[in-house]
Amino acid sequence: MADRVLMTLDGEARDPDAPLVHADDIGVLRGDGVFETLLVRGGRACAVELHLARLAASADALDLPEPDPEEWRAAVDLAAEEWGSDREGILRLIYTRGREGAGSPTAFLLVTEVPERVQRTRREGVSVVTLERGFSVDIARTAPWQLVGAKTLSYATNMAALRHAEALGVDDVIYTSSERYVLEGPRSTVVIARGRTLLTPPPEMGVLPGTTQRALFDLAGDYDFSVRYEPLRPADLIVADGVWLVSSVARAARVHTLDGHPLSVGSLVGTVEELVDKAVDAAP
Amino acid sequence: MADRVLMTLDGEARDPDAPLVHADDIGVLRGDGVFETLLVRGGRACAVELHLARLAASADALDLPEPDPEEWRAAVDLAAEEWGSDREGILRLIYTRGREGAGSPTAFLLVTEVPERVQRTRREGVSVVTLERGFSVDIARTAPWQLVGAKTLSYATNMAALRHAEALGVDDVIYTSSERYVLEGPRSTVVIARGRTLLTPPPEMGVLPGTTQRALFDLAGDYDFSVRYEPLRPADLIVADGVWLVSSVARAARVHTLDGHPLSVGSLVGTVEELVDKAVDAAP
Repeated sequence: MADRVLMTLDGEARDPDAPLVHADDIGVLRGDGVFETLLVRGGRACAVELHLARLAASADALDLPEPDPEEWRAAVDLAAEEWGSDREGILRLIYTRGREGAGSPTAFLLVTEVPERVQRTRREGVSVVTLERGFSVDIARTAPWQLVGAKTLSYATNMAALRHAEALGVDDVIYTSSERYVLEGPRSTVVIARGRTLLTPPPEMGVLPGTTQRALFDLAGDYDFSVRYEPLRPADLIVADGVWLVSSVARAARVHTLDGHPLSVGSLVGTVEELVDKAVDAAP
Repeated sequence: MADRVLMTLDGEARDPDAPLVHADDIGVLRGDGVFETLLVRGGRACAVELHLARLAASADALDLPEPDPEEWRAAVDLAAEEWGSDREGILRLIYTRGREGAGSPTAFLLVTEVPERVQRTRREGVSVVTLERGFSVDIARTAPWQLVGAKTLSYATNMAALRHAEALGVDDVIYTSSERYVLEGPRSTVVIARGRTLLTPPPEMGVLPGTTQRALFDLAGDYDFSVRYEPLRPADLIVADGVWLVSSVARAARVHTLDGHPLSVGSLVGTVEELVDKAVDAAP
């Protein structure tokens, strides 16, 4: 069984051990492109439509040509099928500005194994450190060129923040704004529970709209939860009835420790994780 | 004459039209790597040592393995020689974290033609718009994971800022901090003249240390200029005796218009451009 599946957007399978991208691809030279990460489970990709919609929004923010949803949908299905149904996989959709001077984008799909870290995260939850991102919550309005609502290939700072956490012996990061509002994780959305209300920071505050959070919020009403977009402070997390980092691959990782403070294990722990699973499985 | 030269770090020439980079290279997937851009003139690369020193500093900021200066120097010489001496070229050094799980970096060199835009910039100068970067000048201290002093492959926001300028009919950008201090251009350092004093913002304010600015400052004393690192406001640029965006490829681009205000053509215009040329040619 292949440990990786690589496919170009036209559905052609490629050897993952053969080079695919040209040296002068602006995606390589400038991180100038966008991506999505989907979970493959049971031979199909999860929440495809939510991810394709966000891919289109990110492409729009970067003035990239509009991705053709039909074409991507077909390639996603093929790649997931090729990966097979007997194990989970991480499917990445990569869409760059293409080679210098070519004027046509580069697009491919890559499926890889789910790292052991993710299994541990699902099982045990995560410890988190809050790190200042250095932006105001006004950033999306005052500096749209900072592309905070787009999922770009320029993720070096997110990787640096995660290395910083690792050096502190902590699993993950929650960014705060320069006003000390809660923003998001480098690869996840923050969701908290206050009683049976689920809350997350509004996207207008300069966070990436989360596909998993969106699926959760869409389904929550059916399970007697209310949902709300609301500015949150770190203190709101400390006193919450549960804090999760939700994302496509790990789904709901319970935050058990924040900046060294153990967070209480409320009665909702377990319930919300199950709800996230149901929501993503039901998502378009 | 080839319109591009591509070389791996071992000095092996590669076909620039054949793919070089693997789909799972973290440089592609996450913009996780660093780069340098050098001017090739007369068959040799300019200011090689300054660029190799900054490459090493950037790599250090990203916890990448220390680049071997001997190896890079040899490859730079080879690539410049291969490009030839009868035209200028842009030499890019690319150094990524490598393929996922491989634990060894990807390194290559690419020489391409100098775009007509650069020739025009040298001849005519540039119009510039100030854009807020959204960071405080404290960023390097409060959020080192934002990597503001490192030249990373995650340049999507710089590209977006330049597209924004283009949409405004303006040639280039000067970023300002959230306190409205002058920072830098997306691909250049801001230098102004106040009489025979050259000034630039201190790197501690969250700007990339400029190799060309550094060469200029090193030589300026020999030509009866004094130099100073000093916080600057946009108003300081308006009343300056000259404002330049200095960079490896364009060298010194005089700013003739800032946010719609024509800047005065002082007696130093021309002098500073020549000095930058001398400085870079003399730089190690």
